[in-house]
Amino acid sequence: MADMARRTGRRPGNPDTREAILVAARAAFADRGYDAASIRAIAAGAEVDPALVHHYFGTKEQLFLAAMQVPFNPNDILTQVERGGRDEVGERLVRAFLTVWDSPAGTAGAALLRSAVSSEWGARMLREFVSRQILRRVIRLLGMEQDPHAGLRASLAGSQLVGLAMVRYIIRVEPMASAPRETIVAAVAPTLQRYLIGAIDVPAEPGPH
Amino acid sequence: MADMARRTGRRPGNPDTREAILVAARAAFADRGYDAASIRAIAAGAEVDPALVHHYFGTKEQLFLAAMQVPFNPNDILTQVERGGRDEVGERLVRAFLTVWDSPAGTAGAALLRSAVSSEWGARMLREFVSRQILRRVIRLLGMEQDPHAGLRASLAGSQLVGLAMVRYIIRVEPMASAPRETIVAAVAPTLQRYLIGAIDVPAEPGPH
Repeated sequence: MADMARRTGRRPGNPDTREAILVAARAAFADRGYDAASIRAIAAGAEVDPALVHHYFGTKEQLFLAAMQVPFNPNDILTQVERGGRDEVGERLVRAFLTVWDSPAGTAGAALLRSAVSSEWGARMLREFVSRQILRRVIRLLGMEQDPHAGLRASLAGSQLVGLAMVRYIIRVEPMASAPRETIVAAVAPTLQRYLIGAIDVPAEPGPH
Repeated sequence: MADMARRTGRRPGNPDTREAILVAARAAFADRGYDAASIRAIAAGAEVDPALVHHYFGTKEQLFLAAMQVPFNPNDILTQVERGGRDEVGERLVRAFLTVWDSPAGTAGAALLRSAVSSEWGARMLREFVSRQILRRVIRLLGMEQDPHAGLRASLAGSQLVGLAMVRYIIRVEPMASAPRETIVAAVAPTLQRYLIGAIDVPAEPGPH
């Protein structure tokens, strides 16, 4: 269909062409990972010109979000987290996260988690998303590129947030499922604060083995 | 099949009868919840005598674990957590949890999470399991029945553990997926310790709304 769209010279915005690009993008991101999947290769997979990919979707990052059907831009959360001092970064992060999940975007968030849990493909896409789009930026945001445990810190924070989403919105265990948002914010903020910039007390021999 | 098994008077241990009881138990626990599902009603659903249910599966709790296909007894974890003082309860809990997930039982744990995420039925069963089998016991174990936030504390600890399982074993985000167990234990223990018996700083108007 993409090929037909190209040959018949339909205008940009053709839904068949868009869909062909998204299909090729999902395959490329899952097969090669975010970094190695090039716009050029994705365009070749969809049988369109690379310029058309940029025209429809903008940057590779925007294409990735569209391919994953992420219903919000993670930048919106990170921008909220960025405002203000480092002392309340944990509090701002958990509040922004819960605000997204309490909004209509939460439904799509649940769909993302479901796909990650039910298929290796979904897990791989979400892994790429979390590693490249979220953790890397949080580390940069906090100016922690030099911290040897920056990656571990970010994934610890991620584990608490994913667990919150699971228990509050998906498994819905009480009293957490019905607790007011600020109750959760107050309880969880110190955890994120410590994981991100506090003492995490890693044993003498850290790192992957 | 249960009916046939009963009429033909097969000996206890007949796999068809066992399976019929498990099917009836899953339906009863999902429809009514753990507390309201009686052995009598489950036996009626399977068309067997209640005594046979006890004979095959023991207590209602053991039947529930068998129906959920939980590959380990949560008591084994909680017994490890029970040993020693309250000051290291967070450390013992996360270590015991990771030890189970690192064992062959972890595969079945992943299947439980998958079923909870992909179906309302699975979510309901896991919710019952977590609420009745895990949280209640942790509260009793810590002697916190009188703490007005005991349920919230236990579900906060549960959210961190579920998130660890998701990020380390299911989505497998690095560096957490390959980090040595004791690295995770050291980083996460203070979180569980605070959630369970430390200051959780809940705002003036707590509780469900």
